[in-house]
Amino acid sequence: MVLTQVVTLLTDFGVSDVYVGVMKGVIAQINPVLTVVDLTHEIGPQDIAAARFCLMNAYLYFPAGTVHVAVVDPGVGSRRRGVAVAIAEGFLVGPDNGLFSGILSQSPALSAIELTNPQYWRSPHPSNTFHGRDIFAPVGAYLATGTCLSELGTPIDPATLVQFPIPSYQKTATGFIGSFQYSDRFGNLVTNIPASAIVGTSWSVKIGDQIIPSVHTYSDSNLEEVVSLIGSHGWVEIAVNGGSAQSQFPRWKHQEIQVLENSGVQ
Amino acid sequence: MVLTQVVTLLTDFGVSDVYVGVMKGVIAQINPVLTVVDLTHEIGPQDIAAARFCLMNAYLYFPAGTVHVAVVDPGVGSRRRGVAVAIAEGFLVGPDNGLFSGILSQSPALSAIELTNPQYWRSPHPSNTFHGRDIFAPVGAYLATGTCLSELGTPIDPATLVQFPIPSYQKTATGFIGSFQYSDRFGNLVTNIPASAIVGTSWSVKIGDQIIPSVHTYSDSNLEEVVSLIGSHGWVEIAVNGGSAQSQFPRWKHQEIQVLENSGVQ
Amino acid sequence: MVLTQVVTLLTDFGVSDVYVGVMKGVIAQINPVLTVVDLTHEIGPQDIAAARFCLMNAYLYFPAGTVHVAVVDPGVGSRRRGVAVAIAEGFLVGPDNGLFSGILSQSPALSAIELTNPQYWRSPHPSNTFHGRDIFAPVGAYLATGTCLSELGTPIDPATLVQFPIPSYQKTATGFIGSFQYSDRFGNLVTNIPASAIVGTSWSVKIGDQIIPSVHTYSDSNLEEVVSLIGSHGWVEIAVNGGSAQSQFPRWKHQEIQVLENSGVQ
Repeated sequence: MVLTQVVTLLTDFGVSDVYVGVMKGVIAQINPVLTVVDLTHEIGPQDIAAARFCLMNAYLYFPAGTVHVAVVDPGVGSRRRGVAVAIAEGFLVGPDNGLFSGILSQSPALSAIELTNPQYWRSPHPSNTFHGRDIFAPVGAYLATGTCLSELGTPIDPATLVQFPIPSYQKTATGFIGSFQYSDRFGNLVTNIPASAIVGTSWSVKIGDQIIPSVHTYSDSNLEEVVSLIGSHGWVEIAVNGGSAQSQFPRWKHQEIQVLENSGVQ
Repeated sequence: MVLTQVVTLLTDFGVSDVYVGVMKGVIAQINPVLTVVDLTHEIGPQDIAAARFCLMNAYLYFPAGTVHVAVVDPGVGSRRRGVAVAIAEGFLVGPDNGLFSGILSQSPALSAIELTNPQYWRSPHPSNTFHGRDIFAPVGAYLATGTCLSELGTPIDPATLVQFPIPSYQKTATGFIGSFQYSDRFGNLVTNIPASAIVGTSWSVKIGDQIIPSVHTYSDSNLEEVVSLIGSHGWVEIAVNGGSAQSQFPRWKHQEIQVLENSGVQ
Repeated sequence: MVLTQVVTLLTDFGVSDVYVGVMKGVIAQINPVLTVVDLTHEIGPQDIAAARFCLMNAYLYFPAGTVHVAVVDPGVGSRRRGVAVAIAEGFLVGPDNGLFSGILSQSPALSAIELTNPQYWRSPHPSNTFHGRDIFAPVGAYLATGTCLSELGTPIDPATLVQFPIPSYQKTATGFIGSFQYSDRFGNLVTNIPASAIVGTSWSVKIGDQIIPSVHTYSDSNLEEVVSLIGSHGWVEIAVNGGSAQSQFPRWKHQEIQVLENSGVQ
């Protein structure tokens, strides 16, 4: 079997222009047999928090050695660093702005490099606005093809990588207090409270004065009912059967939420 | 030449989240040299009829042995079955909810399996909300890699697969009476009347009191003219040159349409 | 290493229907090991100018020999020709309507063929509405697999290919007068004035009475500031930091713009 390495791409470029296609062309120029997988290109412009969430919930589902190239890059052309980071599961390539904080909170950096070696760029004179094409895509392709991380530039202390931590949740007498970290395209609202934290078999969510019962799966709820459940990424989520939880909680980014354990409402 | 098998994906997940990317990661974990093709991920949430139409009009254009994984799954987490079905052209994998009824009306099931063998799942404890990632994508990858259908679970009688038949059309003295089954992104409205049914060389479509002449191709009509033609999938379609037939017939899902043969209007 | 050839696809089909997936299926039927890259499928319906811009700014980033299949085709089913064109960097396949004029203005056609040999089509009786599936995708797949251009049909004089030239810019006493040729999904407006034309180190853009200073990169501007810069494709662009230049200049398609060299405003 041919050894095929995987490169994933995550950007805020959308797919109506050729930016993403061009990144794939640059990768194919270096190694056309790589398998390139789109994580998503619909991250909101410069929404590093959404990118952090998406990367964190995707990296465990890829083969060992996969290279994740992520470009949500408000500081492109400024002095912010470009980096490549080794983790147990593979490699991360992108701007040093906290994008990878979610992954690194679960899987610590084994080593990190600032991308200072132009030999692995598309050109020694990269564009000021498109390092995805000129630096990150080619570096990702070389890594996936077997180039050593240390070849790519200057070693840096992983502790100096920009941190952008996920807001933490608190334990309370009755359960947990947390917040929402993501809204998906169905309007499901994902909290920052992991399923693994919940001990009781019965629990509910409280938002303001509203108690939201938990269900096992979507089909256990009635049409248009607001429910809580453990989502596929392993976080407590709020969903509306056949509707959008986001439109019920339009201020979700600023909303405090509580998980009540053994609450009797289920 | 390396033997490369094809897996297609069709879902209602959209591409703004990482759901689809994660399914591709799971496939690559099993076999990174598979060719994965997106049919579409923009099926309306839980719109099984649209999924049925899209699958039916795509499967004939793929190599022999292609595995079509389709996940439009309102019943995920309930007792609905997950199935894999063999047809002459390849394999179908997804929930047993009628998604594949269009294909199976043209190419009968040769055999069918309920997906009960967790050895071919991503984990013996699948998520309650994302069988696309945990069951259907890995099963599809194993099938495309050569795993025998019978390994995947318990044989079932294909006659017990959930049926969701395409509404039929009727022959009349002057032609046919039918309905619309799909609206594409251009607003072209596709009927359930196949070109092969029309015998006369001259025909038109009647909707309410409106007679719509048939043309050979779009460029035979005037700008903003409503016309009927044989679409690329082989069905009678209604189109508006430079516009949208759907916006002219907003109640298209409930509209009766007639094809008039040898009508003199062409 | 397996020799893997690249085929790119650019259409105005969108991705909500199965049109693009079906083109990929047809390619896989001919050769499943080709690497297929989407340039974009979100070209506005029949917007040949946008397609021309996208192709021109993408082709240089792909491996030698890449086959670019482009289908923005208002004349499908009419007598317009289908063509395949050889350039130094690879091959172009699509309708003869000027789509490739941007590429050909930079890299002249070495030879051209009218696609008249149905042996390389999906069927000798192609649909009247979907030559992307029935002619252009299979021809692209055969070319990428090693079929000689001359096998595909009748040689034609490249000078007879339909021209759709990019509007030219003029040199003035103070700089250049030009126009906009594209708006990307961020609302960045791309002019037809290449960076290579500008000699001075200091320049600005004038639109109506408004002087727009030039910056090095986005992060050199303030939030919501209108700026000009050299974009990643090498053209003078207008951008709004954190906003959309297009919404500031809604009549951009009809707007004259000036570049003022050595203007003192920078």
